Amino acid sequence: MQDIKEARLKIRSGQYTGYTSGWCRDFVQANLCIVDREDADDFAEFCRLNPKPCPVLAQGEPGDPVMRTLGDINICTDLPRYRIWNNGVLVDTVSDISAHWNERMVAFVLGCSFSFDQLFLNAGLPLPHLDDGSMVAMYRTWTDCTAVGKFSGRLVVSMRQFRADHAIESIAISSRYPLAHGTPVHIGDPKQIGIGDLSRPDYGDRPDIVQGHLPVFWACGVTPQSILTTSPQVKMAITHEPGCMLITDMPYSNIEV
Amino acid sequence: MQDIKEARLKIRSGQYTGYTSGWCRDFVQANLCIVDREDADDFAEFCRLNPKPCPVLAQGEPGDPVMRTLGDINICTDLPRYRIWNNGVLVDTVSDISAHWNERMVAFVLGCSFSFDQLFLNAGLPLPHLDDGSMVAMYRTWTDCTAVGKFSGRLVVSMRQFRADHAIESIAISSRYPLAHGTPVHIGDPKQIGIGDLSRPDYGDRPDIVQGHLPVFWACGVTPQSILTTSPQVKMAITHEPGCMLITDMPYSNIEV
Repeated sequence: MQDIKEARLKIRSGQYTGYTSGWCRDFVQANLCIVDREDADDFAEFCRLNPKPCPVLAQGEPGDPVMRTLGDINICTDLPRYRIWNNGVLVDTVSDISAHWNERMVAFVLGCSFSFDQLFLNAGLPLPHLDDGSMVAMYRTWTDCTAVGKFSGRLVVSMRQFRADHAIESIAISSRYPLAHGTPVHIGDPKQIGIGDLSRPDYGDRPDIVQGHLPVFWACGVTPQSILTTSPQVKMAITHEPGCMLITDMPYSNIEV
Repeated sequence: MQDIKEARLKIRSGQYTGYTSGWCRDFVQANLCIVDREDADDFAEFCRLNPKPCPVLAQGEPGDPVMRTLGDINICTDLPRYRIWNNGVLVDTVSDISAHWNERMVAFVLGCSFSFDQLFLNAGLPLPHLDDGSMVAMYRTWTDCTAVGKFSGRLVVSMRQFRADHAIESIAISSRYPLAHGTPVHIGDPKQIGIGDLSRPDYGDRPDIVQGHLPVFWACGVTPQSILTTSPQVKMAITHEPGCMLITDMPYSNIEV
């Protein structure tokens, strides 16, 4: 699915509720975290201090679900699936949050490494998970994010495996897109960042481990969801379902530095 | 030695004939390869087809040792040490080539990864070889360069070891300087590029291998010297002595892309 208008309608209408990886490859994809306005200043500061997992593409006005700077976007309907969180517990998964939305809610839209995928393919870097329709593998690391107020917890990373020269190219490419997580946070030995077994991701699908390839780890916009599970003082939050991203109307060139 | 004018005079006068790593860190350093004008077109094409080891900063006019585009440079006197090659054999090492210069000679000045070193230090990446005054380690790989006419042979690389996050940063930084070899050609397992033992470099000093660090390998401007040893049909060539570079008057910003 590469046509942005068609993709938007399928998702908005609830016809499509699956993964967006590989969809609309010319456009920036994004993570979502909605918090109550009493938590919004702290969450904004959390993002500012943790820019690799949480690069802010847009912050909504309290009670306003329309994200004008990202295109024709209504945050209540334009992601395939959402997760509803209460006091750090995942309580529901839905494909539309219009019924949950209220005047106190503030939406944060965060960059996503899916934005790299087309650039990687253009450069000849293979992404086998796109071929078989599976999700990139994601892992909770032992790296602590910088805590702000109620928000504290561990960094989540996404992992792609490459031949060494492709790994180098992937770093050079992603370095030009800090709003899509930018350069990776780690390369090589997963144990150095607290990942014991690459074949058991915390989110996404189990990857085939390729002998002689290097795993490359990018900070991931699923981090706020990991944060929520260790921040039970946060009464309410809504996030995307991992892999089911907001597809914006922004082409990548808009976020290239 | 950071003052460019003082460094130039010390080298030009023959007072200093040693390594230039760490010298004049704001200025682009460069490799040298001088060939006979009958070989100049082929060597220029060799550089064009092998831009990672041989990024051309300047090509002189036949018989003219002055490299105006690089500053106040006379190629016969402004490197600490030179190597004289006949038919692929190193026949002499000298600190001044004025007596060898003739009307048939064409100088090629090639970018050098020493240019990164100050940028790495600015970013907080440690370079222990600079602290103890030793030379970066260089290795002949099993990667063949693209051959042109008489010029054929193996790629030489320089190696720096970093913690994983520093390795990533080193790749991002060097990606902005293609005229100083640009992104590395390899990271991780040295055997994948034909290096059997990191503690036995082919050029430069033996490095201390740091457990848990990743070796990162950049294409190296010593490559033409490796090429000369396997290209005996090249009757005459003059190169720099590895580590004893031309320090140009160009600040790095001139070659940032």
